[in-house]
Amino acid sequence: MEGHQRGGVVEVGENARERYYDSSGYGRPDGDGVVLSVVEAAHLLYRDDLAAVDGRDFGAFLADNPDAVVPFLVYRDLRDRGFYVSPAREGWVDDHAGVDLVVHPRGDGPWDGTVAHRVRVVGERAAVPLADLGGVVLAVVDEESEITYLETERPDVSGTSDCSPSTPAEGVLLGDRVLVDEPPAALYGSGFYGQRMGRDGALQLSLLEAASLAERGDLAVDGGAGAVRERGRAAAGERFDRRLTVYRRLRERGVVPKTGFKFGADFRTYADVDTVDDLGHSELLVRVLPAGVVRSPRELALDVRLAHGVRKRMVFALVDGDDVAWVSVGRLTP
Amino acid sequence: MEGHQRGGVVEVGENARERYYDSSGYGRPDGDGVVLSVVEAAHLLYRDDLAAVDGRDFGAFLADNPDAVVPFLVYRDLRDRGFYVSPAREGWVDDHAGVDLVVHPRGDGPWDGTVAHRVRVVGERAAVPLADLGGVVLAVVDEESEITYLETERPDVSGTSDCSPSTPAEGVLLGDRVLVDEPPAALYGSGFYGQRMGRDGALQLSLLEAASLAERGDLAVDGGAGAVRERGRAAAGERFDRRLTVYRRLRERGVVPKTGFKFGADFRTYADVDTVDDLGHSELLVRVLPAGVVRSPRELALDVRLAHGVRKRMVFALVDGDDVAWVSVGRLTP
Repeated sequence: MEGHQRGGVVEVGENARERYYDSSGYGRPDGDGVVLSVVEAAHLLYRDDLAAVDGRDFGAFLADNPDAVVPFLVYRDLRDRGFYVSPAREGWVDDHAGVDLVVHPRGDGPWDGTVAHRVRVVGERAAVPLADLGGVVLAVVDEESEITYLETERPDVSGTSDCSPSTPAEGVLLGDRVLVDEPPAALYGSGFYGQRMGRDGALQLSLLEAASLAERGDLAVDGGAGAVRERGRAAAGERFDRRLTVYRRLRERGVVPKTGFKFGADFRTYADVDTVDDLGHSELLVRVLPAGVVRSPRELALDVRLAHGVRKRMVFALVDGDDVAWVSVGRLTP
Repeated sequence: MEGHQRGGVVEVGENARERYYDSSGYGRPDGDGVVLSVVEAAHLLYRDDLAAVDGRDFGAFLADNPDAVVPFLVYRDLRDRGFYVSPAREGWVDDHAGVDLVVHPRGDGPWDGTVAHRVRVVGERAAVPLADLGGVVLAVVDEESEITYLETERPDVSGTSDCSPSTPAEGVLLGDRVLVDEPPAALYGSGFYGQRMGRDGALQLSLLEAASLAERGDLAVDGGAGAVRERGRAAAGERFDRRLTVYRRLRERGVVPKTGFKFGADFRTYADVDTVDDLGHSELLVRVLPAGVVRSPRELALDVRLAHGVRKRMVFALVDGDDVAWVSVGRLTP
């Protein structure tokens, strides 16, 4: 059979409905013909299941529709994995905004109206606004045409860690840290604040820990929380305030943040700290970013690969004033 | 005993030489006294091995010498690991430029003139010019005062992979890739160029692969290598040229570069490709950067941790015109 392109779709008439839609899940019915998206038509040409579109073969058709090359690679990959896939066109699927393809659950087809994954196709060099993510799978096509699937969610970040030291600690600002010579035992032991100095139980607190404790009245330091924040801003600028906002929020939610430096992140977190002696594996790597931030797929791939390698979940904390939105990104094998 | 600070050093007289230098490797002899660096004096105060410096105890002394806080943490850590450590002061050690501490081999002391590691101390927020690295260990002190040691080298990047296809291939530019319908078998089979399309052995080449092949006369494409480079520059700007320079150099040196996208890097590389069917593990992750680039310790930690997690070595290719300098960074446990 031969198809005819009309703008964004390819029409195939004359009993094409049964062959393409009913038995193979391509396109949408149009009388006893079908309307195919450009990507579907390319896939049928590629499979030699459609002879030509207005006389053009696979190569010539794609050369005339260059925007369809990258989505085609993803469509083909998902089809190869045994899924029916619907182009996310208005009227074809619900909630098509921001999505290119809808993957139906294994065994289901476009006629079932069910959804396994909502997929956005992006090239390796795209700019991805993180605030748009959640509930969508990014299919990233790299320069060698390999595809990486990244699942994005809006996780609930919370835990059961809780520590309000009964007696306030006294500390001294020393460079970018606060030294507490005689800390209450619970500060480190159940609150997991600071790091032991190795001598007489003295603690070194980070500026974030010290600011948060001082704000709550649990740490006395010359100049108070304001002096600690000032020191933090001098060292890290606005980033300090964003990180402090996230630090506070995590503590409020019963999650203990510790530095994620060794993982190149802002924090690693512990959701259920009872005592430091019985510390579990940290669950999340948190990267703190301004709410409007844009990341490249390569940066996302790096973060996700690293988190996966150390058995943690990668979470972005997007900060807008006092608001924090949580977005998690992980690998997906459809 | 009590010391007296004179600018950058602390002097301790009266038989201090035997106690501090001869038996413990602190400072340098000065008659039968010693001259200590500020960091060494802080460590002796911390150990209660020195009573005071001009009446000040450990906390007060460090508060007056805030620049010594971070080096002190590293000095203490290395001492705790059982090493003698010399401050890299002019006249105290050779080659002190760009270095803060010299770690002597285990069992050796400052009197032996031997060197295990030359250490540069940097805070988590420092800016590290990559071109300065090689032959030095970075001791990064993070905000919670934990220390990460990063070993830097100037590696020889070379291999034995070689592929000059006997017959040129013919390709078509399609978006950001080149499609080769009927490639010579050696192109993929022994050269590991491109990725198979899954159909009749057709190959998709990345723009870098295509440009490099076209420049060497191994690929015919409309407009030649120039058209491919133009497409690459339109997509990635100057970064395309830097990556192409490194791609060419790696191929010239017998190393096969493939995309490092899944690892958030520019390339992963194979030093000894004989045939693709018998492909070993890729050895390096290569990140391509302009020669003058500055990285934060956090970015370095992220790269190094990831490379370590996938059993590869992290190498930075620093590009200045046609020159490429290779700098590797890895974790070190002293």
